[in-house]
Amino acid sequence: MSWLRTALIAMPGPHLVAGDAVRARAADILRPAGALARLDELAAWMAEWQGTPAPTVERPAALIFAADHGVAAAGVSKYPIEVTGAMLAAFRAQQSTVTAFAAAAGATVHAVDVGVGRPTGDIRTEPALSPARFEDCVAAGRDAVDALDADLLVLGEMGIGNTTAAAAVAAALGDGDAEAWVGRGTGVDDEGLARKHAAVAAAVARIVGLTDPLEVLREVGGAELVAIAAAVMAARRRQLPVMLDGYVVTAAALPLAVAAHDALAHCQVGHCSAEPGHRRLVARLDKHPLLDLGMRLGEGSGAMAAVPLVRMACAGITQVPTFSEFFA
Amino acid sequence: MSWLRTALIAMPGPHLVAGDAVRARAADILRPAGALARLDELAAWMAEWQGTPAPTVERPAALIFAADHGVAAAGVSKYPIEVTGAMLAAFRAQQSTVTAFAAAAGATVHAVDVGVGRPTGDIRTEPALSPARFEDCVAAGRDAVDALDADLLVLGEMGIGNTTAAAAVAAALGDGDAEAWVGRGTGVDDEGLARKHAAVAAAVARIVGLTDPLEVLREVGGAELVAIAAAVMAARRRQLPVMLDGYVVTAAALPLAVAAHDALAHCQVGHCSAEPGHRRLVARLDKHPLLDLGMRLGEGSGAMAAVPLVRMACAGITQVPTFSEFFA
Repeated sequence: MSWLRTALIAMPGPHLVAGDAVRARAADILRPAGALARLDELAAWMAEWQGTPAPTVERPAALIFAADHGVAAAGVSKYPIEVTGAMLAAFRAQQSTVTAFAAAAGATVHAVDVGVGRPTGDIRTEPALSPARFEDCVAAGRDAVDALDADLLVLGEMGIGNTTAAAAVAAALGDGDAEAWVGRGTGVDDEGLARKHAAVAAAVARIVGLTDPLEVLREVGGAELVAIAAAVMAARRRQLPVMLDGYVVTAAALPLAVAAHDALAHCQVGHCSAEPGHRRLVARLDKHPLLDLGMRLGEGSGAMAAVPLVRMACAGITQVPTFSEFFA
Repeated sequence: MSWLRTALIAMPGPHLVAGDAVRARAADILRPAGALARLDELAAWMAEWQGTPAPTVERPAALIFAADHGVAAAGVSKYPIEVTGAMLAAFRAQQSTVTAFAAAAGATVHAVDVGVGRPTGDIRTEPALSPARFEDCVAAGRDAVDALDADLLVLGEMGIGNTTAAAAVAAALGDGDAEAWVGRGTGVDDEGLARKHAAVAAAVARIVGLTDPLEVLREVGGAELVAIAAAVMAARRRQLPVMLDGYVVTAAALPLAVAAHDALAHCQVGHCSAEPGHRRLVARLDKHPLLDLGMRLGEGSGAMAAVPLVRMACAGITQVPTFSEFFA
């Protein structure tokens, strides 16, 4: 049985005591009760997953999984498939948006190649991944997390054509209406958008009746989506809090939530993408992105942009006295 | 004539050439055109006010103006007036939420006393400030900015009773409907809210017919509100970009925009407060807060929370190559 399936069966839960300790402290801290609202709750969530009443963001780290997609041949992207590899090189050379954001946020970025130059099957007509390659991607995602020294995990992706795969996963696990889940991605024109609609509709029609969410991910997802799903579950095993990025990353995590309702409890969504499917998806997952700035880049940039907010939320609990401490 | 009035007459404009250089670079940078949306526009705005095509946030600094309010005697706040002075001490001892946020954001915080222990007049029945004291507050706000070494100015406030003053300014310069501009501030109960409605209605009725926005600020504002207005204009003189905080800071800046339509062009609003009047106010000013997290603290905390986003926006322009640079 896939490691991913096993991981979904035995998931560690939150450290509720640590979270409650933060909530109790928040109620007595030197500011009006409730004045930090969402940020206090964010600090409590960090405490629950870090297992401490004094959560911190000292070693945030991003994993950016990159891979190519057979469906790119359908003309669904504004950019040629070679851009995936170029961006992988840019991440590694610290010459990209997410690495610039990471430098500002005090985070590290680790780009992981799970299939650049080795496109998946064209999801219109064939499975994206064989069972064996699916497992290889699971192992890559899991091992990348296991090797990481981090107190907050940021997940990102790069793969020309992957908003088509994301839409196919979301549509196949959602209401099946391809149009509702398809957007312009990196900025495809009207003709490309029509091709994207058709590609997603074909992929969804090909697997109609398939209900196993991990099989849906294998059939119409992509290599980096599988690695991301595995990374989410590897983080869960370590009780490492996760910041999800936009449409592709959230769609990669969706099958986990379908398989086990609580699977994404250790995840927040950093930013609500301008890609319309993302807003639908976070609503379905009952997630509330911290930022809503109209970005639609991927790379983990939306998740990285939220990292300083998490750091401030923690500092708002640990670096501010309570009324009784201050007036002692 | 007040320095504030003079400053409003001769305002430096933006460095349009620097802003356009950022926009041109953004269009060719190593990401899909428009993918950073709001953040690219934020970087262009920073360039316009810093006067350079390579904007940075290296020395962000917050000024927190604190003062007491005669109207606090009307029972409009959940907290006693002594809390203003206690919080001033907390800021200076780095034992507060905004100083914790500032440490996380790499910013400095400077707390300026413009009337702690010297309450303004009770705005229900008398002017908040005499003309002489108004000028003292203007000078304090201006001088604090002039003394600052900063590339981004964060403005915050502390003053028990000051959301009542903010509501009075907004109502007197708006549609005059007190109820629409009054909220619970730090969490006043129903009886306190009713007293707050009555206080704002009385203040607005007392100055009915007064149209000079700076006179409205003197009559129904407060000492820290005047200092903030002067700080905004002192920053404008230096072409220093400003991050406004929540309801009180934005209300303090409102008379400037009423006096001169373009007066707040060098200002962004960091966070939309949970105080309902703030959403009305930013809409009136056509401002679009970067964050919307339900906070209602003041202290400059909402503005400070947005500082890392500005830093990342700048890095997204200056620390990422263009397509031509990358593929050269």
